[in-house]
Amino acid sequence: MTTISNIDLKELAEQFGTPVYVYNADKIRSNYKRLKEAFASVYPDTDIHYSVKANSNIRVLEVFKSIGAGVDCSSPMETILARKAGFADDQILYTGNYESPEDLQTAYAPGVRLNLDDMSSFDRLKKIAIPEMVSFRINPGIGRGGFEGITTAGADAKFGVPYEMAKEAYQAAKNAGVKRFGIHMMTGSNNLEPYYFAEVTEKLMTIAGRIFENLDIVPEYFDIGGGFGVPYDDYEQELNIELTARLVAEAFREKCDKFGFGTPKLLMEPGRYLMANTGYLITQVTGVKKSYKTFVGVDAGMNTLIRPALYGAKHRVEVYGKELKNDFVNLCGQICENSDIFANNIPFPVAEEGDIVVFREAGAYGYVMASNYNNRLRPAEVLIENGKSRLIRRRETPEDILRLYDI
Amino acid sequence: MTTISNIDLKELAEQFGTPVYVYNADKIRSNYKRLKEAFASVYPDTDIHYSVKANSNIRVLEVFKSIGAGVDCSSPMETILARKAGFADDQILYTGNYESPEDLQTAYAPGVRLNLDDMSSFDRLKKIAIPEMVSFRINPGIGRGGFEGITTAGADAKFGVPYEMAKEAYQAAKNAGVKRFGIHMMTGSNNLEPYYFAEVTEKLMTIAGRIFENLDIVPEYFDIGGGFGVPYDDYEQELNIELTARLVAEAFREKCDKFGFGTPKLLMEPGRYLMANTGYLITQVTGVKKSYKTFVGVDAGMNTLIRPALYGAKHRVEVYGKELKNDFVNLCGQICENSDIFANNIPFPVAEEGDIVVFREAGAYGYVMASNYNNRLRPAEVLIENGKSRLIRRRETPEDILRLYDI
Repeated sequence: MTTISNIDLKELAEQFGTPVYVYNADKIRSNYKRLKEAFASVYPDTDIHYSVKANSNIRVLEVFKSIGAGVDCSSPMETILARKAGFADDQILYTGNYESPEDLQTAYAPGVRLNLDDMSSFDRLKKIAIPEMVSFRINPGIGRGGFEGITTAGADAKFGVPYEMAKEAYQAAKNAGVKRFGIHMMTGSNNLEPYYFAEVTEKLMTIAGRIFENLDIVPEYFDIGGGFGVPYDDYEQELNIELTARLVAEAFREKCDKFGFGTPKLLMEPGRYLMANTGYLITQVTGVKKSYKTFVGVDAGMNTLIRPALYGAKHRVEVYGKELKNDFVNLCGQICENSDIFANNIPFPVAEEGDIVVFREAGAYGYVMASNYNNRLRPAEVLIENGKSRLIRRRETPEDILRLYDI
Repeated sequence: MTTISNIDLKELAEQFGTPVYVYNADKIRSNYKRLKEAFASVYPDTDIHYSVKANSNIRVLEVFKSIGAGVDCSSPMETILARKAGFADDQILYTGNYESPEDLQTAYAPGVRLNLDDMSSFDRLKKIAIPEMVSFRINPGIGRGGFEGITTAGADAKFGVPYEMAKEAYQAAKNAGVKRFGIHMMTGSNNLEPYYFAEVTEKLMTIAGRIFENLDIVPEYFDIGGGFGVPYDDYEQELNIELTARLVAEAFREKCDKFGFGTPKLLMEPGRYLMANTGYLITQVTGVKKSYKTFVGVDAGMNTLIRPALYGAKHRVEVYGKELKNDFVNLCGQICENSDIFANNIPFPVAEEGDIVVFREAGAYGYVMASNYNNRLRPAEVLIENGKSRLIRRRETPEDILRLYDI
């Protein structure tokens, strides 16, 4: 691998320094277009709300704004960033959990659609305002994610109203004066099987049928969450999004007919699917150690990209100008603990100090999870658009750390 | 639990807001004193270098400076912080790994003692300077930590020169003109068994005996690393540090005699042992959910304290003014993923919104690993000293996030 969107990787490394996150705006656009068309062709009234938590750089949010997406925010600061990128209230969805009164105060605005995580969230919200529209996140009692930490429904999940208690929640909201309703479900992240999404949709709709029966409520939107996965290695399949859309739409329409829901809006909140494969973490080899194994150390670590250390997640790795992988190495960062390993025993080119190493699928849950562990400074971010690269967040400096001591 | 060092927890929460990290300087001093005396009484020439990565707040470093500790730094920024706290070069130890030339350039200064992680580190350093003194970190081929991520030696560890190759490293350094030498080993973190430390010391000394045989080098210091553990729950024993010191000193002296090392300096780099139990993370309950389990959500999460999500680590938890634990709950944060759970199925008081929840043993590897995940802002830090509390790092604001867009 030597280029991103025709821009030489070595030049990027020299111009912006390493480590640096690089995103490809053209790829963001094409990912969005593919997802949008897949659903629009089978269910026109589909709205895509990009999940800001996957990558919240304001310039990235502006790309989504320019192509007609909405956003899904998970904290007050994410609504601030979304507004800075130009999103209007009615393009913002807010999906929190265990929201404090201050969180709700910041997030709430007429027009912002709130996916409430619990009846107790509504009780807190009531003290601030009775919104015109409310949606509850339902825990359907089952869930599936790429791994346990990102499975977000089921008996052990902290999210959502148990489906058996949801009717009561809507009844209470209606009694309190709420006029319009949505319903939400998000069961897990990074799934690659189309059938899973159809299954989840069917489950949500069946539950909704029971919830709204005799309640005299017709929900205006059904939010099926995100969870659309991307392959992180060459042996995983790509999610067939066209098949997914067709199966989901079929199940959706069928149940809407069955329960008399008409043709409500279909909402979704993808993050990873839109961003992961648009991003690259460019690093440089700082040391090659011949120990019991060969260790290749780079200038990024669990401080920069924590997914491998936290989830055991994999990222495809390439070395600039070295295609032949005729060595086996452990790839690590510079942090003083052994969790700081990106991958063990991976096929790799024979590496030298100064080699440019690129981590792929780094556009989602990369920079947003970075820390200053070991007092390493956070990297820069760069956006490539129309064949040009530009800095979209500067690298941290010691002053950025020291500033918090000005008291 | 209602007070820290006689200061009411609720008042701290009101004065500084939540979440907030609070450290007790008196406890830092007594931890240091106990460790220092344990070793000084059995081996007077013992130097303690506090491991900055555990908690790098400058005001915390100043406490260590005031009581005569040295520091161990793991990155260039940590040397900047140490110097700001008043440490002179000869009080600074630098233990890196896969150091870039820029790292070594910043870390190197005459007087700073460098624990080099590999022969290749020395090759990089040579291009900057030939230091008067060098120490190599030895991988003894075995290691043990509280859990895998913090086991820092053995065949799978990225750290250190394999012991079988160490003689060669020292020979090369000597040939290059280095005049004085140390030797270093750090095999794992959070161990609670005195015998383990004696075993490791014996191992290091035996290896040193072989390394320096016929090399005409007598090392001036032996750095046995850190790894002194603290109990994180009521069912773990405290490390008997007096017994540890006695056993370590006995093994150390015996081998020094055997190999003709004289009475070299004994160095150590504890972090967790000195800081963990001096710190508290004070949070507030934002929501209580009756789902398939009872979930108690607080205003801190894996963004604030990642140890439970990353390592499955436990922290003792107390609720202000509620001693009776007659409920069982899952305790979680506000982040939108299910990794954000501090503990499942723990005995807990019957909780309500607004309750003050305190995480204990949060003085080490707490704030230093915090992130802005979900765009949550990092908390404030407070130091209690002589019965008074003061803000030692301010809470982040939206402006701190936005500042990195000024390009």
